[in-house]
Amino acid sequence: MDPVRLEQQLEFIMEIDKLKRVYRQTYLLNGQDKENDAEHSWHLAVMALLLHEYAAQKVDLAKVIKMVLVHDLVEIDAGDSFCYDEAANADKGEREEAAAARLFGLLPRDQGRLFRELWEEFEERKTPEACFAAALDRLQPLLHNYHTKGISWQEHKVTEDMVLERNCHIREGSPGLWEYAKGLIADAVDKGYLQGSGKRGDQTGKKGR
Amino acid sequence: MDPVRLEQQLEFIMEIDKLKRVYRQTYLLNGQDKENDAEHSWHLAVMALLLHEYAAQKVDLAKVIKMVLVHDLVEIDAGDSFCYDEAANADKGEREEAAAARLFGLLPRDQGRLFRELWEEFEERKTPEACFAAALDRLQPLLHNYHTKGISWQEHKVTEDMVLERNCHIREGSPGLWEYAKGLIADAVDKGYLQGSGKRGDQTGKKGR
Repeated sequence: MDPVRLEQQLEFIMEIDKLKRVYRQTYLLNGQDKENDAEHSWHLAVMALLLHEYAAQKVDLAKVIKMVLVHDLVEIDAGDSFCYDEAANADKGEREEAAAARLFGLLPRDQGRLFRELWEEFEERKTPEACFAAALDRLQPLLHNYHTKGISWQEHKVTEDMVLERNCHIREGSPGLWEYAKGLIADAVDKGYLQGSGKRGDQTGKKGR
Repeated sequence: MDPVRLEQQLEFIMEIDKLKRVYRQTYLLNGQDKENDAEHSWHLAVMALLLHEYAAQKVDLAKVIKMVLVHDLVEIDAGDSFCYDEAANADKGEREEAAAARLFGLLPRDQGRLFRELWEEFEERKTPEACFAAALDRLQPLLHNYHTKGISWQEHKVTEDMVLERNCHIREGSPGLWEYAKGLIADAVDKGYLQGSGKRGDQTGKKGR
């Protein structure tokens, strides 16, 4: 047992406690508290365990789980960029790259490399595992929005078109879950949780909020 | 895609959101907020990914991760029993058994069985994976207690003897991490974070808080 190696690992383990106080725009199902990144990452990992049978291609489940466990770590420094906030997303890449360098640099070199590779693979969305992990990362807030009657959508004036555009790559990871998601979005519009898009400029259509 | 199966899986996925509001006695490293079970489970999963090289026997990492992701789900119904609270622990088994029946019963039968098996294996602490998962489950709050200067230990009048007795089965899962943990406990006593035991009845020894 190399004490320097162990100290590096434990320093990282203590540092990432901060992920528990990086808040997202998604509400918990109690409709009151915003979710944090650690809670979100745990939820995605359990979802992967249950839903991997719907992946577009056969996936290495362990890899999907590892990927969702670490995919948001960079937000400890870079913060959560709300997916519909264009300004926040403009320099997101740079902020997250700097965060990855600092955070993964705390680890012994081999493990720093492993974490960086998992994070990069997730971000690039090219492998079956990354596509499926990304699908879960979209589906989970969609489920939360639907089951909290769209509070977060309404707070941010998000419309049906925006939700469809944002989430359509669920299809790449899981065509079956995308079919389900589309049904949920349509139902959210019918129920008035989400403003329907209809014609542009028709902000007061009967399906709007 | 069987719509009934998917609905059962999603109902379970929404139900377990409640784990995010099951609070533990452990403080986050900010020293202010108590940790919840979802955050704790996520933290253990990342720890498993980094520390499995110290397991007493070679472990199936994916299984350890799955186990720590689901090990506390029963606390959604049964609540968190503080490990030093004997009264709460007296009927813990019964409460958790009822919780397992209800929660895992929401899932399609094959997945309900998988979750129950993971939970039972963790609780029984017989396999190398379960022993290592249990070691992490003890080490993580120990690290948090140490790095928050023992606030939770002091709030509950926990002493060195109690901590040593409670945590000694870290050794079964990882002799190396147990050596490290013992050093941390001794140092916590030296620094006044944890009341040293010394001779019985000597509650005011110089190493006490």
